[in-house]
Amino acid sequence: MPKLPAGLRANDFGEAIRQFEAAVGKQWVFTSDEDVALYRDSYSVFLGEPEEIVASAAVAPDTVEQVQKVMKIANTFKVPMFPISTGKNLGYGGSAPNLSGSVVLDLKRMNRVLEVDDKRHFALVEPGVSYFDLYRYVHERGLKVLLDLPDPGWGSPVGNSLDHGVGYSTGEMRDHFASHCGMEVVLPNGELIRTGMGAVPNAKTWQDYRYGAGPYVDGMFSQSNFGVVTKMGFWLNPLPDAYLSGTVTVPKHQDLVPLVDILNYLENSGITNGMPQLGSPIFGGPFAPPDPELGAMMSKPGGATPAELEAYGARKGRGYWSCGLQFYGPEKVIAAQWEHAREKFSSIPGAKFQDGPSYKFPLTPEQIEKSHKVTVGVPDLSIFMIGARSPFNANPSHGHVWFSPIVPRTGQAILDAQKVFTDAAGETGLPLLNGPAPLPATYYKRAFIFIFGIMVSTDPSVNKKNREAFRNVIKIAAEKGFVEYRTPPAFQDDVVATYSFNNHSLLRFHETIKDAIDPNGILAAGRYGIWPKAMRAKKA
Amino acid sequence: MPKLPAGLRANDFGEAIRQFEAAVGKQWVFTSDEDVALYRDSYSVFLGEPEEIVASAAVAPDTVEQVQKVMKIANTFKVPMFPISTGKNLGYGGSAPNLSGSVVLDLKRMNRVLEVDDKRHFALVEPGVSYFDLYRYVHERGLKVLLDLPDPGWGSPVGNSLDHGVGYSTGEMRDHFASHCGMEVVLPNGELIRTGMGAVPNAKTWQDYRYGAGPYVDGMFSQSNFGVVTKMGFWLNPLPDAYLSGTVTVPKHQDLVPLVDILNYLENSGITNGMPQLGSPIFGGPFAPPDPELGAMMSKPGGATPAELEAYGARKGRGYWSCGLQFYGPEKVIAAQWEHAREKFSSIPGAKFQDGPSYKFPLTPEQIEKSHKVTVGVPDLSIFMIGARSPFNANPSHGHVWFSPIVPRTGQAILDAQKVFTDAAGETGLPLLNGPAPLPATYYKRAFIFIFGIMVSTDPSVNKKNREAFRNVIKIAAEKGFVEYRTPPAFQDDVVATYSFNNHSLLRFHETIKDAIDPNGILAAGRYGIWPKAMRAKKA
Repeated sequence: MPKLPAGLRANDFGEAIRQFEAAVGKQWVFTSDEDVALYRDSYSVFLGEPEEIVASAAVAPDTVEQVQKVMKIANTFKVPMFPISTGKNLGYGGSAPNLSGSVVLDLKRMNRVLEVDDKRHFALVEPGVSYFDLYRYVHERGLKVLLDLPDPGWGSPVGNSLDHGVGYSTGEMRDHFASHCGMEVVLPNGELIRTGMGAVPNAKTWQDYRYGAGPYVDGMFSQSNFGVVTKMGFWLNPLPDAYLSGTVTVPKHQDLVPLVDILNYLENSGITNGMPQLGSPIFGGPFAPPDPELGAMMSKPGGATPAELEAYGARKGRGYWSCGLQFYGPEKVIAAQWEHAREKFSSIPGAKFQDGPSYKFPLTPEQIEKSHKVTVGVPDLSIFMIGARSPFNANPSHGHVWFSPIVPRTGQAILDAQKVFTDAAGETGLPLLNGPAPLPATYYKRAFIFIFGIMVSTDPSVNKKNREAFRNVIKIAAEKGFVEYRTPPAFQDDVVATYSFNNHSLLRFHETIKDAIDPNGILAAGRYGIWPKAMRAKKA
Repeated sequence: MPKLPAGLRANDFGEAIRQFEAAVGKQWVFTSDEDVALYRDSYSVFLGEPEEIVASAAVAPDTVEQVQKVMKIANTFKVPMFPISTGKNLGYGGSAPNLSGSVVLDLKRMNRVLEVDDKRHFALVEPGVSYFDLYRYVHERGLKVLLDLPDPGWGSPVGNSLDHGVGYSTGEMRDHFASHCGMEVVLPNGELIRTGMGAVPNAKTWQDYRYGAGPYVDGMFSQSNFGVVTKMGFWLNPLPDAYLSGTVTVPKHQDLVPLVDILNYLENSGITNGMPQLGSPIFGGPFAPPDPELGAMMSKPGGATPAELEAYGARKGRGYWSCGLQFYGPEKVIAAQWEHAREKFSSIPGAKFQDGPSYKFPLTPEQIEKSHKVTVGVPDLSIFMIGARSPFNANPSHGHVWFSPIVPRTGQAILDAQKVFTDAAGETGLPLLNGPAPLPATYYKRAFIFIFGIMVSTDPSVNKKNREAFRNVIKIAAEKGFVEYRTPPAFQDDVVATYSFNNHSLLRFHETIKDAIDPNGILAAGRYGIWPKAMRAKKA
């Protein structure tokens, strides 16, 4: 028996379900415990606890018209709905809603690749299209584009970009929301809009020009509950001729400052266009056998000083920091870019360089197998090795949630953040995974993101402790100005609370919009802290 | 005596003016005819006619707090307000409102450059800052950034980007709205919000990461009447080492198709990063003396055929089409990029290449004087030579408005658009300026914009005829899918009407938002077709 949405009478819910069935076909409305359980968040931090946020049912329309019908029915009966695309947002909530009892609006059947153009370099897709689907479409037709891919590839370009997800190739494309162009949206009341040039009946520029005339509203539909996106366009990379990579290593602790400054210059100029990767080779990398000398140095009271580590690095022939660069483009151009990067980094005394893998596109199957697939446009699931049973991991986990604060792109900010997060981990007991000197990810060209995986346990008492610690770390980090760009529903109210300027005026603005466009409050109640009016009153 | 806003009692308006004076200082509230006349649109298509849309007064606050106070007073007395930054949006409306009787909210005194960072490459500015101001700030401090500039330089980065204005340097930066990061906005009710990381009190990443957590609302404040933007961040180009330019010329009419395809590949790959410039050298360029042979060919019934023009071009040693490329970056890199571009274009039989100007940054004053200034980051007003008295222009005009439709980036679309606009000009009598084969501008990396200047006359009967023709051309072009990205207030209702998908559902969505966040309808009534509820009812 489905769990009833709060405040809904069984009769009304039953009638809504019947009308959903009439709208989309009986076989596409799911109410059995077995079926509905599939929409649970596999990585829930409430695993096995009564607080786990679960759906009451699911409905899977096949067309935009069916989505409109479903939303109109939901309004009639005030059924809370929670849209998902492929629902693979693991670590940030999966396919489970913010409000228990919500009906999942599962868009997986809307999986049509509507167009891919390799002359103007764009795709138009439905929300159920996964990166694997899009890759297959492109690959089968030999289209000359390179997909920008997140980890892992079973997610959806629509869902990933709406959640401000990120990828691995060129800087402009890595920001998946920024590289979208044009949307079709079913509003909470069932009304259909198209944004940008999609609003012009005969225009051929829906995926070329995004603003249209008048307000540019697309951003309202990302990380929000203002509409159900049913089509979305994305700009694509043209297939490059070649790929080149290389690494610079620098010897001193303070070299991180010029290292990042030079990296910013190179990336913001487009001289390196692939995702850079910062490293701290001094600690030997994740798979290095433990070194007793280093261990002794690190575990003494106060830990190792930078000077001690620098001396250790000099003895071992290891740099203190490294930065891997990737280049996509014509062979002669990327060779000149890598040469220029080396010249720039050579201003740091002791900088050393190493060439990395290089390829010509298209790669051979053997090359793909050896490559970091997502960087060469091939979707993949190997990221799930993290936390998995392996020779390198004595404690496999049941899953994880991400703690992912944004940090300025300076070396000093990294050093500050390392201290803040190390201290916060000590203070709260939150087991942060990333080694002795955690480094940020470089998905966004102009900002760093620290990404800490918090493992989910099968022991509820561990999860409970970690939840509390997670909430404390959010607060501690926010005091230093480091706040998150994305978080699972369990922590969305906490994270949104840190965006508190002028007595939370931004959230109140979101609420004003919510009340206007979703007066019944039926769409994704609670997503990113935006609760319908009635529930807001109850919470306060 | 100020012209009273419609529906407002003289007493109330007088009291509002007195309260504005108390809020910002008596000398910063303008009500005399002489002062208010300065806010007229110098390029109004209603020049000297009673229909000209004019302000009733102006108020110029100096601080965000004063803007808030002004908006609260305006709400109390229901005074329609129209915000401008520098108000130099000539050709698209200048500083005049959409609704006669509005009080101009003139933000010119808020002209502080708050921060420029040449390590993370951003600026944070107030709306009254002009491109000249920002250039001066950067130049005086020797900061290593290159500004992306529109024509002309007395406009404001805030105002220009909110109007979806464009510039001349690298592709990412030319789209001024897309390269902004972070906003501060006074809402119509006087409430203050900051978007993105600006909502986090201690964050240092306001200009690094734009989304924050939850909906990304910035786009709502562009080409709209949803708020008064009081601060805005912009990403900047790092100062490049060098600049290089070159031109490819191709001989055949149909070569335009591969020319554009190759250009798209080069630009979308970042192989050429400066603004490209399409040309049709076969017609000799704007300053060429008239050639009787060409004239005879063009003026015969049906005009010259492509084959005749190709043969003419071969005799004269002129290509049919050209594409100028610009490159910013390290000398060796841009040399390799230009070389690669030549290789690609060489696949078009008969393609010829010519090197253009090249510079090292910073340019010498002599080099700047000889350069196309806006392409090397130096703001300029020389664009006003168009329509001005000159040896090349027998009919100087009083001003102009722009007709600027978006067209797909293919050669065939250009050829189609040329026919559509030439036919429409013939049909309506609208005097379109751009020669026999008008070519689009390439400001936006993924879309073309045709930009036709319609001259404003001192003879109202000419303007009246042109206004009607302009409205007809909007409709004719929209039937073919070519619609405008930006237009003066006089034509905003017409242009917005072409975005008509699903019975104008996008406009109705805008109206729903408008009613929710500006229930008194006091902010920029009518901007981009969004009228307050009461006026909508009257119009309908």
